[in-house]
Amino acid sequence: MIKYELIKKDNETNARYGKIETNYGTYETPMFMPVGTRATVKSLTKEELIDAHSGIILANTYHLWLRPGEDVIARCGGLHKFMNYDRPILTDSGGFQVFSLAKNKEKDISEEGVIFKSHIDGKKLLLTPEKSIEIQNKLDSDIAMSFDECPPASASYEYLKNSVLRTLRWALRGKKVHNNPRQALFGIVQGGAYEDLRKLSAAKTVEMDFDGYSIGGVANDGESKEDMYKAIDYSIPYLPDDKVRYLMGIGEPVDIIEAVIRGVDIFDCVLPTRIARHGQAFTRYGKINFHNAKYKEDLSPVEEGCDCYTCKNYSKAYIRHLITTEEMLGGRLLSIHNIRFLTRLTEELRDAIKEGKVLEYKENFLKNYKEKNLIDKK
Amino acid sequence: MIKYELIKKDNETNARYGKIETNYGTYETPMFMPVGTRATVKSLTKEELIDAHSGIILANTYHLWLRPGEDVIARCGGLHKFMNYDRPILTDSGGFQVFSLAKNKEKDISEEGVIFKSHIDGKKLLLTPEKSIEIQNKLDSDIAMSFDECPPASASYEYLKNSVLRTLRWALRGKKVHNNPRQALFGIVQGGAYEDLRKLSAAKTVEMDFDGYSIGGVANDGESKEDMYKAIDYSIPYLPDDKVRYLMGIGEPVDIIEAVIRGVDIFDCVLPTRIARHGQAFTRYGKINFHNAKYKEDLSPVEEGCDCYTCKNYSKAYIRHLITTEEMLGGRLLSIHNIRFLTRLTEELRDAIKEGKVLEYKENFLKNYKEKNLIDKK
Repeated sequence: MIKYELIKKDNETNARYGKIETNYGTYETPMFMPVGTRATVKSLTKEELIDAHSGIILANTYHLWLRPGEDVIARCGGLHKFMNYDRPILTDSGGFQVFSLAKNKEKDISEEGVIFKSHIDGKKLLLTPEKSIEIQNKLDSDIAMSFDECPPASASYEYLKNSVLRTLRWALRGKKVHNNPRQALFGIVQGGAYEDLRKLSAAKTVEMDFDGYSIGGVANDGESKEDMYKAIDYSIPYLPDDKVRYLMGIGEPVDIIEAVIRGVDIFDCVLPTRIARHGQAFTRYGKINFHNAKYKEDLSPVEEGCDCYTCKNYSKAYIRHLITTEEMLGGRLLSIHNIRFLTRLTEELRDAIKEGKVLEYKENFLKNYKEKNLIDKK
Repeated sequence: MIKYELIKKDNETNARYGKIETNYGTYETPMFMPVGTRATVKSLTKEELIDAHSGIILANTYHLWLRPGEDVIARCGGLHKFMNYDRPILTDSGGFQVFSLAKNKEKDISEEGVIFKSHIDGKKLLLTPEKSIEIQNKLDSDIAMSFDECPPASASYEYLKNSVLRTLRWALRGKKVHNNPRQALFGIVQGGAYEDLRKLSAAKTVEMDFDGYSIGGVANDGESKEDMYKAIDYSIPYLPDDKVRYLMGIGEPVDIIEAVIRGVDIFDCVLPTRIARHGQAFTRYGKINFHNAKYKEDLSPVEEGCDCYTCKNYSKAYIRHLITTEEMLGGRLLSIHNIRFLTRLTEELRDAIKEGKVLEYKENFLKNYKEKNLIDKK
C-alpha cells in the first residue's frame, strides 16, 4: 500500500513537497533511496541506514531471483524479515539488470520477454512481465515495478517507438497477474528523449492506473544530461498530481536537484555506496578522493558540519589509512557519509520547497559544488 | 600503566581470576583480545567491539610502521585517537610479522636486528629492538611488547638456545630505550618446547622486571598442541604471581581453556575475524560453515542463546546468503559473533574460577565442542 499526498507545490518550478504513506510508516518527499542490491545495502546494517535518515530502500529483483531465489526469501518470511529492515522496500523489475548485465549477443528480446544468460553461471533464463511480478509478489516488497524494456541510449526512434509500445503491453500483462494486496505496483514511462514517445508512454501508462509512476531510461551508459532532463520534462506533464514520481537510477547531487525542480519525488542510486568503496566521498564542494596523500594527517572529518556517524567519530587521516590499506571499514564509513549526504540533500530540498526557495537553494548549491571529476585531483 | 591484581587462584589448577588496571579502566582476566592488525579490527567499529564485550585490543606494530607510519599516527594524537578506540590497546613488537611474512631468503637475522623485505613494496628494512620500542612509544599503545626472535617450530635445540639468549639481550636493549611513561612494557618468554630453555628464558626475563610477561613461540605453523602446552607448563612456574601472563596468538576455544587452566590470563588471535571472513562461526558444538546449503532457509540465529548483535537480529539463512554472495556484511556479522563467542568463553572461565569449577567447566565444554574441522562438513 502506497498513498501519496501532495502537500505543497512550488510556485516558480514543478518541485513538490509531499508525503508517502506506506506499510511501514509515512515518509516525506523528495526522498533518496539507498540501494540494497542483494538484500543488503553494501556493508551496512539497518541501524546505520536509519541513523543516516534512510526511508525506503531498493532491492534488485534480478539478483535476488538468482540468489537466494524468491521462494527461499518467501519461506523466510519475505524481504523485510529476511534482511531485518522494517522500513519500506521497493523492488525493481529485474529488467535493467537483464538488459545491462547480459551482452547484446547473450540476450534475445521477444514479445514474450527476454531470454538471457545468467551472469553467475551462464545458464539460459527467461524473464517475462508475469515472472517479474510473480517474483516481486513473493519477495513481498512494498513497491513492485513493472517489467519494461530498457533500450540503450543509442537506440533509434523507430526502435524506441516499438519498445515503448511493447513496454505498455508488458505493463498491462504484469498488472493482470499482480497479486499481493500489501504491495503497490508502479508503471514505468519510457521513450528516450523524444517528446511524442514520452507523451505516448506516460499517457497510456497512466491510463492503466498504477499506484505510482517511474521515469525510466535515464540511467543508461552514454545518456547525456540534456536527454535526461528532456525525458523528465516530456513525461511529467502527463503524470497525475496525486501519485508519487520516481526517477530511476539517478544519484548525482546536481541531477537530483534538477529533477526535483522538474517535479520528481523519489530517487535511487548505487552511487553513494559504490564511490565509497572506491574511496570517494561527497562534500558540498564536490567529490573528494581518499587516495589523495593530502589527507594523510588531516584530523578534520570527511565534511565539516555533517551529522553522520562517520563525521562525528573519525578523521580524514584515519579513513585515508583504511582506504589505502583496503580495510573494509573504510568503504563502510564512507558509505554511511555518502548516503547521509544525499538524504540531507533531499531534506534541504524539502525545506527549500516549503519556504518557496528552491531556485535559490539550487543557485547556492551550484555555487559551491563542482560536479566534474574529483575536486582534489591534481 | 598496567597493574595486575590476582584475586583468586584455583585450588585444583593453575587457573587464576584477576583484574588489570589500565589507562582506560579496569578489566577482568582471563580475557580475550581481538586483533586490529592495521588499527582496525577488520570491518568493525568501536561500538561493535564494546557491544561484543571487548576490553584490550591488539594492533600490529609492523603493519602500522609500514602504513601509515608511526609518525603519522603520533601526529594524529596516537593510536587511540587515530582509530577512535578509548579502551586499552596492546601493540606487538613487529617481530612475529617480520619472521613470518618475510621468506627465509628475504631476511637476515643478526645481533643488531633483522633486515627484511617489506611485503608491500619489497623495500629493504631493518627492525631492531630499539626501533620496535621507539615505534611503539610513538604509537602510544598502553602495552608495548619486547622485540623477540620467533624461530620456526622446526628449529633445533642449538638454534633455539642461541635464539633465547639473543632474545634476552634484545629485551634488555629495548627496555633501556623505552621512553613512554603511560606505556607498560612486557617481556617475552621463548624456548620452544624445551624445559631448560623455557626456564632460562623465563627466569632471566623476569629478572629484568617487566610490567607483564608473555609466552611466545606457540603460534607458529606446525606447532603441535602438545608443544604449546609444554611451552606454557615450562614457563609459568618462573613468572611472578603479581604480573599478568599473556599467551600470544592463541584463539582456539579449547586452547584458551587449556591455557587458562595452566595459569594464563590474556589471549589474542585473528581467528574469530579471519574465519568469519571465510564464512565460519564458532558455536558451543564447534565451528560451522555458512557455505553449507543446509542453512539456506534456517531461520535460527548463528547460535541459540547468544546475546550478540548478530544473533539477536539475523538468521542463519540471511547470513548464508551474504556469505555465498560475498557481501561484506556477512563477514562483519560473523566477526561480531565470533568475538563475542570468545569474550563469553573467558567470562565463563572467570565465573568457573570464582566458583572453583574450572575442571568441571572444561569437561562440560569438551563434551559438546568438536574441535577438529567443521562440525557441519559432509
